[in-house]
Amino acid sequence: MPPHAVGVDLGGTNLKAALVDRDAGLVAQTRRPTEADRGPAHVMQRIAACVAEMMDAAPDDAVAGIGIGAPGAVSWDRSTVSKPPNFADWDTVNLRDGLQARLDTTLPVVVENDANVAALGSAYYGAGTTPESFIMVTLGTGVGGGIIYQNKIFRGSTGGAGEIGHMTIDHEGPYARSGVGGAIEAYLGQEFLTDHARDRLINFPESDVPALVDGDLSQLSPRVLHQAATEGDAFAQEMLAWAGHKLGCVLGAAVNLLDIRTIVVGGGVSAAGDYILAPARDVLPRFVVPGLRDNLQILQETLGNEASLLGAARLALEGDQAQVGTP
Amino acid sequence: MPPHAVGVDLGGTNLKAALVDRDAGLVAQTRRPTEADRGPAHVMQRIAACVAEMMDAAPDDAVAGIGIGAPGAVSWDRSTVSKPPNFADWDTVNLRDGLQARLDTTLPVVVENDANVAALGSAYYGAGTTPESFIMVTLGTGVGGGIIYQNKIFRGSTGGAGEIGHMTIDHEGPYARSGVGGAIEAYLGQEFLTDHARDRLINFPESDVPALVDGDLSQLSPRVLHQAATEGDAFAQEMLAWAGHKLGCVLGAAVNLLDIRTIVVGGGVSAAGDYILAPARDVLPRFVVPGLRDNLQILQETLGNEASLLGAARLALEGDQAQVGTP
Repeated sequence: MPPHAVGVDLGGTNLKAALVDRDAGLVAQTRRPTEADRGPAHVMQRIAACVAEMMDAAPDDAVAGIGIGAPGAVSWDRSTVSKPPNFADWDTVNLRDGLQARLDTTLPVVVENDANVAALGSAYYGAGTTPESFIMVTLGTGVGGGIIYQNKIFRGSTGGAGEIGHMTIDHEGPYARSGVGGAIEAYLGQEFLTDHARDRLINFPESDVPALVDGDLSQLSPRVLHQAATEGDAFAQEMLAWAGHKLGCVLGAAVNLLDIRTIVVGGGVSAAGDYILAPARDVLPRFVVPGLRDNLQILQETLGNEASLLGAARLALEGDQAQVGTP
Repeated sequence: MPPHAVGVDLGGTNLKAALVDRDAGLVAQTRRPTEADRGPAHVMQRIAACVAEMMDAAPDDAVAGIGIGAPGAVSWDRSTVSKPPNFADWDTVNLRDGLQARLDTTLPVVVENDANVAALGSAYYGAGTTPESFIMVTLGTGVGGGIIYQNKIFRGSTGGAGEIGHMTIDHEGPYARSGVGGAIEAYLGQEFLTDHARDRLINFPESDVPALVDGDLSQLSPRVLHQAATEGDAFAQEMLAWAGHKLGCVLGAAVNLLDIRTIVVGGGVSAAGDYILAPARDVLPRFVVPGLRDNLQILQETLGNEASLLGAARLALEGDQAQVGTP
């Protein structure tokens, strides 16, 4: 089998694809706007175009298969994607068949949840290379998650495992969009965290954060908080520490259930690094039963978006070997 | 291989053993006090005596092996038990080697966490027979848990997975003995639930519960609450519903992480049945992300203590086939 595969990262805004060499990692990349508002047929056409471009870039045009990381619910057989948020007219679409038809190929096409492919990418090429099992958390617009168990994706009963973002840490807490009270996403989701910071800014009249956004607080974001924190702003540091504390609580619950002691944190908001992760590391053991407290570690994934592309391609290379349980 | 095995349930107070036929289930049983205060050598001698008695009861004295469900931490190779609560002078003890020596046998001896063997028993002989994956919760002195994934025990990285009792549902909530704030055990553990009921009794002067314990509230227990609830006592019903609501919250978090939609509830306190389980069923979907809300079910395990004996024996029959992941 040729050691190359194509990985696709299907985002609501941008569509990315890469040619991946099993050993060397990313060899080529391409991207274009997803134009998700134009419906599934259009999006599929665009995916096919990206993939064709990457296949042409492969030595001898030889690739082993195509892996796709997608939002929404992925079917157990890894062919269809249902109801991805922010995609128009998209109920359940068979990406595998659609792509094979458009590319006129019988190459395997494997679809997987986006947080799961990010976890797989981390497992093979990133912060997750050393531990054989870890919990991946992606901090972005939402809070996503994936479970790598003995170097494979743990998918659960229907392919939906790893929804850490919707685990509660306060059953009477604020509601996330999922309707779950006190879900961690209701604290760490990008808009929730930003709203929280806006509300608390009044307690920190000396903060430089308003100046960083030229007084326009609608421009506040975790990125701005991170920048301010690095410049020593006490308000920004406190907001990120508050988020990290909450993160540590939910990770404790996950460790208790899974007995997986390594957590890898990725996604845009994780760029704030130790401003979030140090408080999370501090609180984590206090939310884990004493017998499971040894060797806990929280690592930062620095691959960024590449983790998803690498993981998606690797999924195509590994096939069913990439998952725990019977497919 | 003969279809019989011996299952052992090593409790802090009582030691039980059974001869199990793979198809017919329990064939013979024996029990004696554990006398855990007399140290590991004494306890091991007592286990050996129970096991020998059950081996003698087997047709042609032929058994395939011995499975032991034990409290405390079990090593990944399923031989040693560390620091079981309420066992004197017990640091780390190799039950497998000790038992093989005392019985002068080379038969396989397999040790496993007590909640995990209860789950396995339920999977093969009880409420968990139909679903191929489920989350087992045992409500007793503590709140235990086990994960059955595709008919096998999910053990995690070190054999300690399934500690549902220590998952938080309120990170600023009351502390369980594990030091975890808002751990579900701090609400549903037998003493915690009883204390809570005692504290709230003052709000229910019309309750018949005090009369049921002849005015001695130190005798209050979940069993008394259950009895009062069946007799229509509004206070008892409310206390059990309160507990069920909390249970539903933590189960929601577990479902989000595992994508396992069936929960089996066993243990002494679960005898209260729907007084606890109906409110748990009611709240559960509200703590699960919408995409994972279909086909949720909470079942009551009615095998009682037999689940552990059956599961322990079955573990010996299945060997490493009883677990997900590489042993």
